[in-house]
Amino acid sequence: MATNTSVKADQDAPAVTEMLARFAVNHPSRGWSDEVDKEAHRTFANWVGCAIGPSTHETVVAALAAVKELSPAGQASLLGRSEKVDIANAALLNGISSHTFDFDDTHLKTIIHPAGPVASAVLSLGEHLDISGRDLIDALVIGIEVSCRVGNAIYPDHYDRGWHITGSTGMLGSAAACARLLKLDPARTQMALGIAASQPIGLREQFGTMTKPFHPGGAAKVGLMSALMAKHGYTASKRALEAPRGLMQVFSNKTDWSEITDRLGETWEIALNTYKPFACGIVIHPGIDGCIQLREQHKLKPGDIKKVTVKVHSLVLELTGKKTPATGLESKFSVYHSCAVGLIYGRAGEHEYTDEVVNSAQVLALRAKVEAIVDNSIDEASSDIHIQTTDGRALHIFVEHAIGSVQRPMSEAQLKAKFVDQSAPVLGEEKSQKAWTVASGIASCSDLKQLITSATKAP
Amino acid sequence: MATNTSVKADQDAPAVTEMLARFAVNHPSRGWSDEVDKEAHRTFANWVGCAIGPSTHETVVAALAAVKELSPAGQASLLGRSEKVDIANAALLNGISSHTFDFDDTHLKTIIHPAGPVASAVLSLGEHLDISGRDLIDALVIGIEVSCRVGNAIYPDHYDRGWHITGSTGMLGSAAACARLLKLDPARTQMALGIAASQPIGLREQFGTMTKPFHPGGAAKVGLMSALMAKHGYTASKRALEAPRGLMQVFSNKTDWSEITDRLGETWEIALNTYKPFACGIVIHPGIDGCIQLREQHKLKPGDIKKVTVKVHSLVLELTGKKTPATGLESKFSVYHSCAVGLIYGRAGEHEYTDEVVNSAQVLALRAKVEAIVDNSIDEASSDIHIQTTDGRALHIFVEHAIGSVQRPMSEAQLKAKFVDQSAPVLGEEKSQKAWTVASGIASCSDLKQLITSATKAP
Repeated sequence: MATNTSVKADQDAPAVTEMLARFAVNHPSRGWSDEVDKEAHRTFANWVGCAIGPSTHETVVAALAAVKELSPAGQASLLGRSEKVDIANAALLNGISSHTFDFDDTHLKTIIHPAGPVASAVLSLGEHLDISGRDLIDALVIGIEVSCRVGNAIYPDHYDRGWHITGSTGMLGSAAACARLLKLDPARTQMALGIAASQPIGLREQFGTMTKPFHPGGAAKVGLMSALMAKHGYTASKRALEAPRGLMQVFSNKTDWSEITDRLGETWEIALNTYKPFACGIVIHPGIDGCIQLREQHKLKPGDIKKVTVKVHSLVLELTGKKTPATGLESKFSVYHSCAVGLIYGRAGEHEYTDEVVNSAQVLALRAKVEAIVDNSIDEASSDIHIQTTDGRALHIFVEHAIGSVQRPMSEAQLKAKFVDQSAPVLGEEKSQKAWTVASGIASCSDLKQLITSATKAP
Repeated sequence: MATNTSVKADQDAPAVTEMLARFAVNHPSRGWSDEVDKEAHRTFANWVGCAIGPSTHETVVAALAAVKELSPAGQASLLGRSEKVDIANAALLNGISSHTFDFDDTHLKTIIHPAGPVASAVLSLGEHLDISGRDLIDALVIGIEVSCRVGNAIYPDHYDRGWHITGSTGMLGSAAACARLLKLDPARTQMALGIAASQPIGLREQFGTMTKPFHPGGAAKVGLMSALMAKHGYTASKRALEAPRGLMQVFSNKTDWSEITDRLGETWEIALNTYKPFACGIVIHPGIDGCIQLREQHKLKPGDIKKVTVKVHSLVLELTGKKTPATGLESKFSVYHSCAVGLIYGRAGEHEYTDEVVNSAQVLALRAKVEAIVDNSIDEASSDIHIQTTDGRALHIFVEHAIGSVQRPMSEAQLKAKFVDQSAPVLGEEKSQKAWTVASGIASCSDLKQLITSATKAP
């Protein structure tokens, strides 16, 4: 027997679907500060590099093979590759690629990876529509604002339930951004958000499998298709987000509407975006950072280390508590592996998360010496690390904010190095340098052709 | 701060993802009774008619226009139409069409409309793979078993939360059926279910808009693509359904695993399928049935009626309580409108749910005289109706089970009449008769060509 008990009936929720739709299409181009526009460029360029890096990975290859079964039209490019597919599946595949190394951006307030769902859709549709770089950045800022504000309103309850919030809010950002590029009116944009609201994507249970990077790609595709459907008059609930049975009340007990309504169009979530220096789950970063700092300060060799004790917030173990990862992908969700490679190699890039490294004797030996202890007096952005050495020393470091955080942002040089590290093995050094230059200044480009040429392989 | 409180951690759930995957690909062809096979044919033929009927409706036209923006390959046919599109979008569009009139089938135990997500995927992929009619029916039975068993395990809590259970379980049935057609092994089929588990579709908030029929179509497409991705080695959690953060625990507090594990492969949910005699929400059917019976027994004319009082379970008003529907689509969710047309016309087919009829003076006048009263002592499958006539008579009928229910199934002749009523205006009488004959005996066809030829328009 169906009853109504589990639905929290906030009948008086503000009309956020309509509000976000109006905002998405009416907010003026570059209607924000220079700092925000700069961060949008960092977001975009970092995302391009993260999509090129894994473009030959088996995850992308498998997804592309499935898409090819549809004999797709060659409408839009795949970053790092030579093929073109239809715009919806180009959004899917670029989105998958950009999250495959778990090396993309993070909106720390919600743990949303904001670029993936939005940039993937904007680039594919934008290439097809022949938009300017300015329009691309505008749509990116707007789309990310929509995803992250919805995320702010429902985090953490929604995430706690088991949803991978990147995919389950990302389709809204993608829909908003695509509606803007398609120049839909507010009413149709509201429908686009509504259609997308019926298609949230992503379970945290999938972490450690290829379906995790599917989530931002799937969200990009869903949002793009929702906008196309709305363009042609497809309808949805006008209150698809806020109604008592709208998306937000259905999938979160927390719905703080003020996170959407307050100062919309005045403050910018993209300004809070951060970029990963390490190719793994963001909550491990303070631990890796601390291990690398101790390694450098004390010239530690793996053989010097007797025991490593990492005190972290419970969320860290909840997300990245894999004690004995067997594959590169699984090791991205292991604080044990990550601290071990930080101590052994002094870095934790994609090369430190391969199947080979995961199963190397040296890594296995040090991993076994890493203990993680839950201490909820420590913030989830921090880490407290003690190392006992074989010669009896007791080393200690407390990392309040890891490198790559809002408080300790990566420099332009560091971001560029990360971009080239990922893209040069795929495209060669010269194209890679060029792609960085174009992507990091995309708003000055009258179209996207230079970007596409430098960031893909010739057919 | 993220905590774990809202996740019900049933760590010991049985391995239902694996179990369903093995079942989906290993169960023998036609491994069920004649009665089950007969019901599968009724399910399929009814679905074909329901997809042909609305094939020129603005809902289908809008969705097709969006799909055409992708320049899709002509891989699979659209029922009732002349176009072909790629298999994923053919599944989407046939699924949308089949639910547009809300006239399709219902698994009453869960209110799932089981054919839409599964048949749409099976027909599109099957046409492309050139399968036999037998294979089509096998995949349909298997896919519906998967969707409905998952539905049984989580209904009603999942539905109460606001999910449109047809779309939020249908992608699993579609994935299972497509995996079977693609002859995936159990391990890859398990991955297909896992990939699909990250993509549940559908909010009840969308009822009364075009996004409601999107749900079965979207689920069909998601399942088909998930199977194609799994075919090419894409991975997902092996416990995507049952893990503490798997789909079922994430979106329902009720998870009765025995509904999946008990007698799997021995009992068949498709045997419980029902077909709608009325083109509206199933919970209104007892009310309409009763109104039509009273009309016929007492030769009632609209002017004879002073007041109509319909006592129903609270769910009926929750789902179909629209007092003043303004459009045909909205009127399908109005017990008031539905009872009024039953009394005026003696039927409630698609023609009684047009914008014109909804706003006709006669309907408005009688609708205003219909009162619906909640009485939870009445089963949701029943209705208790009192009519006061202008000449002082007090008429009464109690309908325990409406026509079209498991207890009072539609006859073959009634099903055929429903099929032809819907399809003849689209395809002409001759093709429509032929399409019924082929669809209702599809397992005897060595391929799907006769079906496609009779159920579509020539290019």
